[in-house]
Amino acid sequence: MKLDNCLTAENINQKLLNIQYAVRGPILQRALQIEREIQKGVPKPFERVVRANIGDSHALGQKPITFIRQVLALAAFPELADSADVPADVRQRVQEILGDCTKGSVGAYSPSAGLSIVRTRVAQYIEARDGVPASPDDVYLGSGASDVIKAVLTMLVEDVDGKPPAVMVPIPQYPLFSGTLSELGLHQANYYLDEEHEWALQASELERCWRQASEDCTVRALVVINPGNPTGQVLTRQNMEEIVRFAYEHNVFLMADEVYQENIVSKPFYSFKKVMHEMGAPYAGMPLGSFVTCSKGWAAECGLRAGFAELARLAPAVRAAFSTARAVMQCPSVLGQCILDCVMKRPAPGEPSHPQFAAELGDIQRVLAERTETAYDTFNSIPGYFCNPIDGSMFAYPRVDIPEAAQAEAERLGMAPDEFYCLRLLEETGVCVVPGTGFGQLPGTFHFRTTILHPRDEFQHMMDSIRSFHLNFLEKYS
Amino acid sequence: MKLDNCLTAENINQKLLNIQYAVRGPILQRALQIEREIQKGVPKPFERVVRANIGDSHALGQKPITFIRQVLALAAFPELADSADVPADVRQRVQEILGDCTKGSVGAYSPSAGLSIVRTRVAQYIEARDGVPASPDDVYLGSGASDVIKAVLTMLVEDVDGKPPAVMVPIPQYPLFSGTLSELGLHQANYYLDEEHEWALQASELERCWRQASEDCTVRALVVINPGNPTGQVLTRQNMEEIVRFAYEHNVFLMADEVYQENIVSKPFYSFKKVMHEMGAPYAGMPLGSFVTCSKGWAAECGLRAGFAELARLAPAVRAAFSTARAVMQCPSVLGQCILDCVMKRPAPGEPSHPQFAAELGDIQRVLAERTETAYDTFNSIPGYFCNPIDGSMFAYPRVDIPEAAQAEAERLGMAPDEFYCLRLLEETGVCVVPGTGFGQLPGTFHFRTTILHPRDEFQHMMDSIRSFHLNFLEKYS
Repeated sequence: MKLDNCLTAENINQKLLNIQYAVRGPILQRALQIEREIQKGVPKPFERVVRANIGDSHALGQKPITFIRQVLALAAFPELADSADVPADVRQRVQEILGDCTKGSVGAYSPSAGLSIVRTRVAQYIEARDGVPASPDDVYLGSGASDVIKAVLTMLVEDVDGKPPAVMVPIPQYPLFSGTLSELGLHQANYYLDEEHEWALQASELERCWRQASEDCTVRALVVINPGNPTGQVLTRQNMEEIVRFAYEHNVFLMADEVYQENIVSKPFYSFKKVMHEMGAPYAGMPLGSFVTCSKGWAAECGLRAGFAELARLAPAVRAAFSTARAVMQCPSVLGQCILDCVMKRPAPGEPSHPQFAAELGDIQRVLAERTETAYDTFNSIPGYFCNPIDGSMFAYPRVDIPEAAQAEAERLGMAPDEFYCLRLLEETGVCVVPGTGFGQLPGTFHFRTTILHPRDEFQHMMDSIRSFHLNFLEKYS
Repeated sequence: MKLDNCLTAENINQKLLNIQYAVRGPILQRALQIEREIQKGVPKPFERVVRANIGDSHALGQKPITFIRQVLALAAFPELADSADVPADVRQRVQEILGDCTKGSVGAYSPSAGLSIVRTRVAQYIEARDGVPASPDDVYLGSGASDVIKAVLTMLVEDVDGKPPAVMVPIPQYPLFSGTLSELGLHQANYYLDEEHEWALQASELERCWRQASEDCTVRALVVINPGNPTGQVLTRQNMEEIVRFAYEHNVFLMADEVYQENIVSKPFYSFKKVMHEMGAPYAGMPLGSFVTCSKGWAAECGLRAGFAELARLAPAVRAAFSTARAVMQCPSVLGQCILDCVMKRPAPGEPSHPQFAAELGDIQRVLAERTETAYDTFNSIPGYFCNPIDGSMFAYPRVDIPEAAQAEAERLGMAPDEFYCLRLLEETGVCVVPGTGFGQLPGTFHFRTTILHPRDEFQHMMDSIRSFHLNFLEKYS
């Protein structure tokens, strides 16, 4: 008793002890340590760490969109307009946004759901994307998509029909979901994406998952990540219709993580909102949560924490409870909201900022197209590797055959085989990727997730490093 | 079954239904409605709504600090340095911060706890304030203080010794606490501040509260708000020592909401960190959470969501669990972190930005000194009003005698007497304040909280409106 035991591992919220977030997990911690060792002159078999653990485009060298940054700068310090050299449409945009800020300051609180002008632009963006009506009243801005996703999941924490709540998530998944479900004490019901069929989402597998989870739990929601993270697949429209029908039949809330919708190489993107609408009654009347963030897409402003949820067709009492819970945290960053405004209404042809914007956007899209192709080709050319086509996102998630001797070695070290593999990759080449255990995978299969948006030379260096590491690894453990 | 009943008031998280946040509650909603009515030409006995519900200085006309906004603008768009007219120390500061951002972009994720440079500056600020060592490793940046306070409260959600957890909060309190405790399902154990003795915090009342709560709960933490919100008092050092001893004796985690530490008129501010340290063993070794935000203080950048927690002397396993939970949400806004950097290390005498900064700071401090005095004098001159001296914060919390006939009228309308009073005040004068029920008050006493940072004329108009409203109200109900 007494002193520093008022908070201990034994008496704090035990759910927190279960949270895992591999994207910033032990492999990254070791990578940061290696970076410090290199700075101190500790010799390594490589010159530098290549971080490929997180979808952080600016950190990989992607240049910020000039229009966005000019708007941010002027919104923060409007007096700059006198001296700074910025285009007229930037000034115009800033005037519009500040006109909706109390006393014209981004330092005043906004409404909890976000500035009215920004929520209106979000609704207009959705309408233009889907050809389906959208209401600013259904739009809730947040500090990134993670923030609003967590807020929505919090609504599901309640026993129903005497059984604890469960949420269906894809495997592999993005660990925001597993981590947040752990924190909230929501049961995670896993459905497996079909790696043999380009990570398709099979309705039969949804049914299996639901039946199994329903033995002990009430399934409250179905999370779908489209485009996939870490898998990079884009769902077909037919597949999406099956998913909608499933959600309807089982009365589960559909949560569509659609944050990579602007990071697609060639396939069309259909939102669940649009698909539901076009399926007509009764599906067009189902509640839906869709999540978007400025951390992804072409803006990729991860550090500035801006995103939104469209929560369509919520019951009024549910909407009211959600709004009050959000109000306690005041509002998301107003400068973050400015970015979202720019992303929702990009410079149009004919406007002064358009030529530069179009050029910058083109560069970003070209990099994505090149890297997805290189990653696909490279990984499939390495013996023991398999990688599905990458339709979009910022990642590759190759499957790797790990020799039995290496699996045994991992076991001796108390690690999962893919963790051992990724740690060895890091120690021998400096390449920092995230083991598949952080996302989930079929038992007996092994993967890692790598970001793919590095500059061409660095990316080639990473691909070459992985290849030669793997060949050595095979030799050592075969 | 089916359609839009997968989320209903009956089956969502019932804890969310209990959340109240009066600062943005029904009175504000009515005020917003009245603003729309005025725009539509509906006649009112006043020209405009005066919002005094929330501590939002910029919304009341306080000008942003130029140095902060210049740093923000350049950090967002460093290319501006070529054309914009900004002082050398702004350029220098931006260079330092961007030097700690990956690839020099505020659009890259920072570490979850915040940029190293900013956490270091926070630690230096604390050391300079307290004369006590502080470590950047104990500093966790967040999206405002609310964000980190909620994260810390989340750690307390666990039954201990077979009893549910309780948190002691002052009455009156800031409803972030009551709202978040409701959401998390933590029992709120109320201790009353002593209005008859300038809102002093009596150790005997802490004991009473603890004993009563301990009958059914395990008390896990003690929240102290100093300077007080809504009360504006600053605790004496002797009082703080009693509080520390209490927390030690009962092994509760001390959570010090110290967000108004830079908004004090004349008294000295002692942090709990300093007081504990100077009390020596065993108190100097106690864990402590202290919370600060850029939304308050002289920066008052509410809209930009930046704050921090110093969590001192946490057990390593607790620290690890907290860090992992934070990592799932990635990081707080990097532009918010830039503001915190400026607040922690303000322009120093001799630096180019100092003269303007000093002038702006002086204006802000003068307004606070004037308004606290005017509010105190005015409220105490209204019959039936009583107001303690206001040492700091941004609020007054006068007590109002409400005639019995008015209380009866409120009851007929299904409202608390102070809610009825504030609603009538709003309808008759346009002045929007928050009823005491939103913060808590001794049963049978009635208060409201008003912000006091309006421009002089508007503030005088508000004081005059309240006075004449009250005299009419007395006449009507006496």
